[in-house]
Amino acid sequence: MHAELLAVGSELTSGQTPNTNVTYLARRLQELGIACLRQIALPDASAIIVEELRQALRRSPLVIVTGGLGPTVDDLTLEAIATATNRPLLLHPPVARRIRAFYHAHHRRLAQRALRQASVPSGAAALPNPLGTAPGLWLRLGTTVLVALPGVPREMRAILDGSVLPRLRRLQRTRPIVSRTIRTIGWVELQIQAALKQILIPPSVEIGLYPHLLMVDARFTVRGRPRRVAVRLLDRLEGALRRRLGHAVYGIDEQTLEGVIGQLLARRHATLAIAESCTGGLVADLITNVPGSSRYFLLGVIAYHNRMKEELLGVSPRLVARHGAVSEPVARAMAEGVRRGAKADYGLAITGIAGPTGGTVKKPVGLVDIGLSDGRRTLTRRCHFVGDRSAVKAQAAQAALDWLRRSLLRRHVTR
Amino acid sequence: MHAELLAVGSELTSGQTPNTNVTYLARRLQELGIACLRQIALPDASAIIVEELRQALRRSPLVIVTGGLGPTVDDLTLEAIATATNRPLLLHPPVARRIRAFYHAHHRRLAQRALRQASVPSGAAALPNPLGTAPGLWLRLGTTVLVALPGVPREMRAILDGSVLPRLRRLQRTRPIVSRTIRTIGWVELQIQAALKQILIPPSVEIGLYPHLLMVDARFTVRGRPRRVAVRLLDRLEGALRRRLGHAVYGIDEQTLEGVIGQLLARRHATLAIAESCTGGLVADLITNVPGSSRYFLLGVIAYHNRMKEELLGVSPRLVARHGAVSEPVARAMAEGVRRGAKADYGLAITGIAGPTGGTVKKPVGLVDIGLSDGRRTLTRRCHFVGDRSAVKAQAAQAALDWLRRSLLRRHVTR
Repeated sequence: MHAELLAVGSELTSGQTPNTNVTYLARRLQELGIACLRQIALPDASAIIVEELRQALRRSPLVIVTGGLGPTVDDLTLEAIATATNRPLLLHPPVARRIRAFYHAHHRRLAQRALRQASVPSGAAALPNPLGTAPGLWLRLGTTVLVALPGVPREMRAILDGSVLPRLRRLQRTRPIVSRTIRTIGWVELQIQAALKQILIPPSVEIGLYPHLLMVDARFTVRGRPRRVAVRLLDRLEGALRRRLGHAVYGIDEQTLEGVIGQLLARRHATLAIAESCTGGLVADLITNVPGSSRYFLLGVIAYHNRMKEELLGVSPRLVARHGAVSEPVARAMAEGVRRGAKADYGLAITGIAGPTGGTVKKPVGLVDIGLSDGRRTLTRRCHFVGDRSAVKAQAAQAALDWLRRSLLRRHVTR
Repeated sequence: MHAELLAVGSELTSGQTPNTNVTYLARRLQELGIACLRQIALPDASAIIVEELRQALRRSPLVIVTGGLGPTVDDLTLEAIATATNRPLLLHPPVARRIRAFYHAHHRRLAQRALRQASVPSGAAALPNPLGTAPGLWLRLGTTVLVALPGVPREMRAILDGSVLPRLRRLQRTRPIVSRTIRTIGWVELQIQAALKQILIPPSVEIGLYPHLLMVDARFTVRGRPRRVAVRLLDRLEGALRRRLGHAVYGIDEQTLEGVIGQLLARRHATLAIAESCTGGLVADLITNVPGSSRYFLLGVIAYHNRMKEELLGVSPRLVARHGAVSEPVARAMAEGVRRGAKADYGLAITGIAGPTGGTVKKPVGLVDIGLSDGRRTLTRRCHFVGDRSAVKAQAAQAALDWLRRSLLRRHVTR
């Protein structure tokens, strides 16, 4: 089975809001073996929504539309569905009761507009929304299913996970699409491509390469084979690629660099402290996005002002005066200082010039020094990144975390 | 003029990679007054790409396709353009020379595949790519323009900004679309809607409301009026909305909460230090995303371990033992401690339970205590947020930053 996703909202087509709903939807559908062949974002304009709905319903056995179900005047999706499917909107009394109860529970006066959300196209089932007032809709049209979900991401997800996916699982009788993503850092796209060429890959396997700053994801997809056969094939391909790329492979599928580091630290009962300057908290933010990170992450110090580097991390003022705040000696002293201060097993430090200002001829924007200390020794490395402030921050964070990961794999700080 | 965007890549339709290119493209086009009527993401599948290209070229005077221009086997866009427009691919000698030189400069051996990128559809202009090998394409087909850009975001942006936008500016002769976004925090969507109802808004003005956690953006759009007239109308609407919402309006258009705080701190020559626990560096990361933040941001301490709260922030162990790490007294002590330690004018502290574990009946996941100190006094507030780990972190950061902003507007710490 394949699907099309329609996301309604001028905030999407104008570029004001990133379209996170389709990313989430596509991923969940993929897990069910439902390939998503088109994702279309549309403005709040009735004629276009109706036209695209009609086309999508002609083409695809499953159409999911998000957004435009709310109570406000620019919410046009319900009317568009009614027009495109030629079904009248009927008041749905249980939904109306739910909306009244919701307003009552939240001590708000019921706006008349809010009851707009209680209309559903004739024949549609209303899917309960545990987090808001607009219900989801499930409408069978012959062999086609049309699903409508609110655009607020957490409501969309709640209805999808609670009501839509269980129904789709029952509906889904096709063979699955099985895929695996091998996540790498440190090699460029064409190097990965060259490594893939050395592996015997059956023509039925689709390959995609997806670079993101210092990282490249390589994805293998197998279609129309029984799951067990596909998984065995993917195991073989993953093994072959890992043998060629070694520690450049940091994980698979949904694994993140920070998640893998968390597993390594937890398994070794080791603790971590981080001293950041140019990354400004980004490295600690990533580390603490991992549930359970409080077991191994003790302390982050964002020593943005040089005085803080001296007072909190014990970096000697003479060192800063002599080499500058962005220098390998200062990165070393920061790593040692934060490790010592937190009594942690590992100390990681990042100092650099994120830009757009602050660069010089000798120390341009993008220059970053990283220090890593494990108590036995402290090493530093110097990197040059290209890009704007956020790209420099992100690359510096990736490089620092990757170095920590590789050192954890070898159990002590190494190049 | 209006446009359609086609983004090619199975990493997009499978939900593996968020589609950031279309967001950026739509925003830049919007600035030129070019409305984006459809954004379509497609998998790496020739037939679908060709079909959608043909439809888009029939419908829209400007079609921009991103992705699939690279050297690897799943890069199908060049061939699809050749098929859809019925134009042969020709080797473009200057592009081939550029690719050879690029490989030479990067000390890499030229892969034969890399020269695939030197083919362009007959009649197309090659747009220089300063950051990579795949050039952009500009192809006039009667009154329609087809633009093709690589999918790597920084290359796409470089070619768009360097070559495409200047050409579009020359092409663009229509009246502009002028819009303004009023950014608010602390009011819910229906409250903003009610405030809008009290304002006289001409029917020619489009209104959109876009909630994001604690924030709601309200956007006014005026089409087909001379820019000066539109701007005057938007000034009036902005003023009317500001009178109703007061300090809930934190900025307009591209302004961010952290950027506004930066302006307020810089203008008052005031400095800031932040102590974070559950937000894990996110608040400091946001603050330091603002260029020039080193002028006012002195120090961040992520005291993830209670011992760090005691040693680095001077929070008394008895306080933690008596009230727990997530408590108003501890938030107060953290705010005072970090302010004192950094000798900053303002100390902001966040402690809470981000989840998914760590919650109890009395202190559930989502409970967050915030402290704010200006040396004269320290206040605390308690919040309850709903959502997963990242949603709790994000809402806690928004709430803490907003409180700081409101206090800066009043020049001392207030509720």
